[in-house]
Amino acid sequence: MNALKEIYKATQPAHHSPLTIDDIIEDIHSQIEFLLTEKLGDIGKKIHSARSRNDQVLVDIKLFLRHEIEHLVLAVQSFFDLLIEQSEKYKDDLLPGYTHLQLAMPSSFGLWFGAYAESLVDDLITLHAAYQIVNKNPLGSAAGYGSSFPINRTLTTQLLGFDDLHYNVVYAQMSRGKTERIVASALANIADTLARLSMDVCLYINQNFGFISFPPELTTGSSIMPHKKNPDVFELIRSHCNQIKALPGEIMMMTANLPSGYHRDLQLLKEHLFPAFTTLKDCIDIAALMLSNIEVKKDILSDDKYKYLFSVEEVNKLVNEGTPFRDAYKKIGLDIEAGQFSYSTNVHHTHEGSMGNLMNKEIAANMHAVIDDFHFEKYHLAIERLLRMDDTERKF
Amino acid sequence: MNALKEIYKATQPAHHSPLTIDDIIEDIHSQIEFLLTEKLGDIGKKIHSARSRNDQVLVDIKLFLRHEIEHLVLAVQSFFDLLIEQSEKYKDDLLPGYTHLQLAMPSSFGLWFGAYAESLVDDLITLHAAYQIVNKNPLGSAAGYGSSFPINRTLTTQLLGFDDLHYNVVYAQMSRGKTERIVASALANIADTLARLSMDVCLYINQNFGFISFPPELTTGSSIMPHKKNPDVFELIRSHCNQIKALPGEIMMMTANLPSGYHRDLQLLKEHLFPAFTTLKDCIDIAALMLSNIEVKKDILSDDKYKYLFSVEEVNKLVNEGTPFRDAYKKIGLDIEAGQFSYSTNVHHTHEGSMGNLMNKEIAANMHAVIDDFHFEKYHLAIERLLRMDDTERKF
Amino acid sequence: MNALKEIYKATQPAHHSPLTIDDIIEDIHSQIEFLLTEKLGDIGKKIHSARSRNDQVLVDIKLFLRHEIEHLVLAVQSFFDLLIEQSEKYKDDLLPGYTHLQLAMPSSFGLWFGAYAESLVDDLITLHAAYQIVNKNPLGSAAGYGSSFPINRTLTTQLLGFDDLHYNVVYAQMSRGKTERIVASALANIADTLARLSMDVCLYINQNFGFISFPPELTTGSSIMPHKKNPDVFELIRSHCNQIKALPGEIMMMTANLPSGYHRDLQLLKEHLFPAFTTLKDCIDIAALMLSNIEVKKDILSDDKYKYLFSVEEVNKLVNEGTPFRDAYKKIGLDIEAGQFSYSTNVHHTHEGSMGNLMNKEIAANMHAVIDDFHFEKYHLAIERLLRMDDTERKF
Amino acid sequence: MNALKEIYKATQPAHHSPLTIDDIIEDIHSQIEFLLTEKLGDIGKKIHSARSRNDQVLVDIKLFLRHEIEHLVLAVQSFFDLLIEQSEKYKDDLLPGYTHLQLAMPSSFGLWFGAYAESLVDDLITLHAAYQIVNKNPLGSAAGYGSSFPINRTLTTQLLGFDDLHYNVVYAQMSRGKTERIVASALANIADTLARLSMDVCLYINQNFGFISFPPELTTGSSIMPHKKNPDVFELIRSHCNQIKALPGEIMMMTANLPSGYHRDLQLLKEHLFPAFTTLKDCIDIAALMLSNIEVKKDILSDDKYKYLFSVEEVNKLVNEGTPFRDAYKKIGLDIEAGQFSYSTNVHHTHEGSMGNLMNKEIAANMHAVIDDFHFEKYHLAIERLLRMDDTERKF
Repeated sequence: MNALKEIYKATQPAHHSPLTIDDIIEDIHSQIEFLLTEKLGDIGKKIHSARSRNDQVLVDIKLFLRHEIEHLVLAVQSFFDLLIEQSEKYKDDLLPGYTHLQLAMPSSFGLWFGAYAESLVDDLITLHAAYQIVNKNPLGSAAGYGSSFPINRTLTTQLLGFDDLHYNVVYAQMSRGKTERIVASALANIADTLARLSMDVCLYINQNFGFISFPPELTTGSSIMPHKKNPDVFELIRSHCNQIKALPGEIMMMTANLPSGYHRDLQLLKEHLFPAFTTLKDCIDIAALMLSNIEVKKDILSDDKYKYLFSVEEVNKLVNEGTPFRDAYKKIGLDIEAGQFSYSTNVHHTHEGSMGNLMNKEIAANMHAVIDDFHFEKYHLAIERLLRMDDTERKF
Repeated sequence: MNALKEIYKATQPAHHSPLTIDDIIEDIHSQIEFLLTEKLGDIGKKIHSARSRNDQVLVDIKLFLRHEIEHLVLAVQSFFDLLIEQSEKYKDDLLPGYTHLQLAMPSSFGLWFGAYAESLVDDLITLHAAYQIVNKNPLGSAAGYGSSFPINRTLTTQLLGFDDLHYNVVYAQMSRGKTERIVASALANIADTLARLSMDVCLYINQNFGFISFPPELTTGSSIMPHKKNPDVFELIRSHCNQIKALPGEIMMMTANLPSGYHRDLQLLKEHLFPAFTTLKDCIDIAALMLSNIEVKKDILSDDKYKYLFSVEEVNKLVNEGTPFRDAYKKIGLDIEAGQFSYSTNVHHTHEGSMGNLMNKEIAANMHAVIDDFHFEKYHLAIERLLRMDDTERKF
Repeated sequence: MNALKEIYKATQPAHHSPLTIDDIIEDIHSQIEFLLTEKLGDIGKKIHSARSRNDQVLVDIKLFLRHEIEHLVLAVQSFFDLLIEQSEKYKDDLLPGYTHLQLAMPSSFGLWFGAYAESLVDDLITLHAAYQIVNKNPLGSAAGYGSSFPINRTLTTQLLGFDDLHYNVVYAQMSRGKTERIVASALANIADTLARLSMDVCLYINQNFGFISFPPELTTGSSIMPHKKNPDVFELIRSHCNQIKALPGEIMMMTANLPSGYHRDLQLLKEHLFPAFTTLKDCIDIAALMLSNIEVKKDILSDDKYKYLFSVEEVNKLVNEGTPFRDAYKKIGLDIEAGQFSYSTNVHHTHEGSMGNLMNKEIAANMHAVIDDFHFEKYHLAIERLLRMDDTERKF
Repeated sequence: MNALKEIYKATQPAHHSPLTIDDIIEDIHSQIEFLLTEKLGDIGKKIHSARSRNDQVLVDIKLFLRHEIEHLVLAVQSFFDLLIEQSEKYKDDLLPGYTHLQLAMPSSFGLWFGAYAESLVDDLITLHAAYQIVNKNPLGSAAGYGSSFPINRTLTTQLLGFDDLHYNVVYAQMSRGKTERIVASALANIADTLARLSMDVCLYINQNFGFISFPPELTTGSSIMPHKKNPDVFELIRSHCNQIKALPGEIMMMTANLPSGYHRDLQLLKEHLFPAFTTLKDCIDIAALMLSNIEVKKDILSDDKYKYLFSVEEVNKLVNEGTPFRDAYKKIGLDIEAGQFSYSTNVHHTHEGSMGNLMNKEIAANMHAVIDDFHFEKYHLAIERLLRMDDTERKF
């Protein structure tokens, strides 16, 4: 094990000599076996005992996904903090709320930013479920049917910082493809939140709405229209995110109706899933850059064209004064038809989650609770312990 | 509120007078308002205060999904128990394990049944995440922008047995479509487990494999081939389940790029999602009926054609006797080519999750832990309390 | 054959005695055999010779799809005619053209209606390809491996009005699932055209745009907002159409990785495909009703906020006067920044397909050419001849 | 124009100086304008007149797809020829035909190879429809709303060898995303044929079937199982092809609910579509290499376990001797149950498309007719003429 650790340390970034795989060597696992055998002689060949490339690759995928999920959570957390911050900053700035894309009722930028923050909480709940499945140890399942070596899978589970085992070796193998699909579905949820936000931005920056703008250096021009300030960044986020949303379906298509047991088909699932993490994190980071530079238009609702937004307020005022709802609704409707609708732009909402009471603290508390549940520190501790461990300490 | 409870009680199944919606009435919410107004006069019209059809329907969907998820979990649990039971019953019955659909190593029916049982554990982890999102209260979000009435959303959350609120009213509305998608993804996971199981069954019952069979009354014949015993049941399960797997993609397609705020599009998401629960439960129940009647062929591996399944065992035997793995692998490979491969069919696997140590107890413990996390009893208690509650007890 | 024709005629709608399938009879094919045997005695049992339920159902599906495609083409044609008519009627009514959802250049309702008309031409090209595959005869493939009876498949091809045979009997069977998928893809193309049109309508009817409106009886109100006029019809069209767009993916998921040969899975493909025809035709018909009642706002572009739409016109004016494009572009850009942009709203586009030269006649000619290619009359003639045919005329 | 042709010729592969895009230049179109201006002075800047990057990129995509489709058709044609050749070569080699994956009736390798050949004919019908849409000229639509320059779009249509125009400029822009989707659907059809073929191969090479094999250099081994000969090539083809089948859904997800007019989202559609052509052609070529080296097992059906395949033959024999079908079916069924089933392995099928009459000539004729319909020579002639054309010949 000391020899393995020497190989590991020699290839750390600080040494500027990354592990390379020789042309005649099949993959990283064979390369390590080759290096070990160079160092130690024939005993190095023992490292593949009780292993198959199948369970080695499965473990690699799970370690990779665990690492990527952690970094994605960090990116989401920091984006969430920004959204809450902007929600508080703009809590008194009203904008029209639409239903059926028709003017409906007053809304606020406080609500708008806060909504996407809360959306991320639910997204992380599904990512946490995916993480629980990722963080189970398949090592020892070998080719998918176990091994006649008396290996200790509980030990490798602890050493590698997995929360639990995928016990049944046939299921451990079956988790390939399934883990990728479940992770992709969780990415799709985050992607959907970002895509919807981007659609809103593209609409609100459109001149007919004109609710928001960005500094010129964050928008782009046109090759023939000298007046254009295009929100390309959000169109690209939207498109990347919609592509990620198609990923679970793609994985399902590639694994549908394959009987149990390993198939080489599974190898190609990596092709779009692995880059999706980088893409999604980039989308989050660039969305954060944009939204931290957003310019929100003031007093949007003072424009007379938005007056009917206040019709529900006027109905409710009558109700609060004692008129039954249906009758109040009828009266205001008739006023509108008769061109006699009068209103006040003073919106007084006080209940939980309304524009007057955003409850961003409670939303943030929910977010922190979800993130705490990941317990990433547990696997970090395990890995550090593994790297410090001495050959004399443990016998495998 | 007593009047509401009278309406509720009068329409319980025991009374054989289900609530019907009059032709001129738009939906169930208007019907109830109509009945209330009949009973109480004008005060009945007040019930729609601080409400919109949007948040009423959102609550309905969540109550429906909560109920359906509970019944699905019950079906999964009972199917899981059967799989564990069959895994124990057939733990010594070997069958070939395949990789690349090529003969690989010995497997067992104990492993095979147990693998699908453990698969359901992970599936329920994702269903539990979906349930956490379902079981949050959107009531009070009205048309998606809150209300000027000083309502108490925490109170309705407790009364209806929700775990938490969807605080932000814009997000509460945005949870429509998103909740359905996340639930559909969780159904797709269960469906995928069933579909893969069905594919295995269709393969194993095929005469070239011939590993299992079912009594004649559970298979079907052919209109022109008098010898056929077709596994139609599992083909239909597979097909239904693959259809359910397409559901998350369908929901994403129907909601892609819709800006925030309600759109009528969302109404149609119910069309395929709601029946999917019934279909999936039916698939589980019929799969259980089939598997409880399965006939497993004895001594499959004693057939000489399966001898190479034991090559890894022979390699490992040499390794355990001291030969380095790569050398042992080479020797057995040469023996096979030379037609000199000799082997014993005695498979001795002892590690966690292997055919000699299925760890079904640990898998079952994991399953029970996941199911306990749902805490369905919490919402039952709330609903019972709500029905017992007296008008004098609470003021809204 | 006369007996068969008697059964056929007795069950025609005019006779009000539709063919019913007795409870103990498996399907319509067995029912007809039963009726024949009642009429003719033992000779009736011969009808299943050289047949399998597999190829009978395949033929049924193809006859059904052929019929449905024809009626869909008729609906598309009539919708196309309306779009061309409206394009001509509103050819001088300008509206803003957007790129990146940003104000870009002047467009016109003539262009807008005409664009969707031309889109349908391409959609029908793909539907025609699907029709060519539908209109091939699988009869005689029996269970998918042919028959030892010396049947004449060319004869049944002519009698049933198919254009050609699916020759190879294994492929004839394989066309099941594939035909459905290809037809669904063609439906998805039409659905996509309708869905995009609906999105445009929902945007243009939004009050911030306000380019179009519909009479009150064609929009709906809100349960709490008395001023709302919601475009529910187009939201439902959009949603139904997006659901249809998910259908090819669903069919692919249900048939992925099934080896060749019949599987019962295929039976369920009908479930969503068959109703999709009715849904799509309904969407087309209701869209036609709406668009024939559309109210287009006059003089939209006279509003000062749209002035930059004319910047390209001004650039081009300079170019036509001799300034190189890049220099003209720079000059107008500087004018805009300096607040000195002046423009004329007179748009003079003359090239093919531009707002001044819509070329609707050429587009309509293309549409008629595509529709003519279907040659539906060929199969009608064949079926009529078959029904007139006398037993003495042909021997099978 | 001579200057443009000089740039073109200087960058042809023979000159080893490919066109490179300078760092400060946005894309290839700006680079060419820059080179022209270097050569000709200010007049070079005129080239962007009446153009937008939008219609330039649209034309590029269509030229690229036209070229790729042509090369794909060539690959399909050559694979088709091989399948027909193998169908003829192995026309007398029987194998079991399965329905429900159950032994059903005798089939033949002649039928099997021929079925996939005929499948490609239908696939090319859909690719031809896609080609018709690809091969229409969008040039002149500029940013999607046309141009005030009096350009001649019919002329550029002829010069570039397009069959027709996308007339309406709004539709020309709308064809972006739509063209990609329709092309992807056609690729998916070819991919599905290959994926299904691959599934059959993986099944038939499995030792329980054992119908085919490949030379050792075309299969791979296992890291722990010295006896394995894995069909990795076909697993990878299957996986790549299933991934391509997910492409139409991905494109639909990325374009769903975008209103008309250009959006930057469309740029990312290239990411998976463009490489799909190379992947699909590689899959076809490697499948051809494999199938030209296939080893087909002789006399498969002489094994007693396949005897019931002949039951339908025996039923039909009785029918041909005068017994009604249902009675013959019953008799053979009873014989089988009583263990008294006797049969001859002599299969005499003569009808069109059956194993005794494969009709490969007719299938090949259909294939050639479909390929002829593409008329690729038309666009080649146009491009050659364009390159030969002299500045004095034409004025733009």
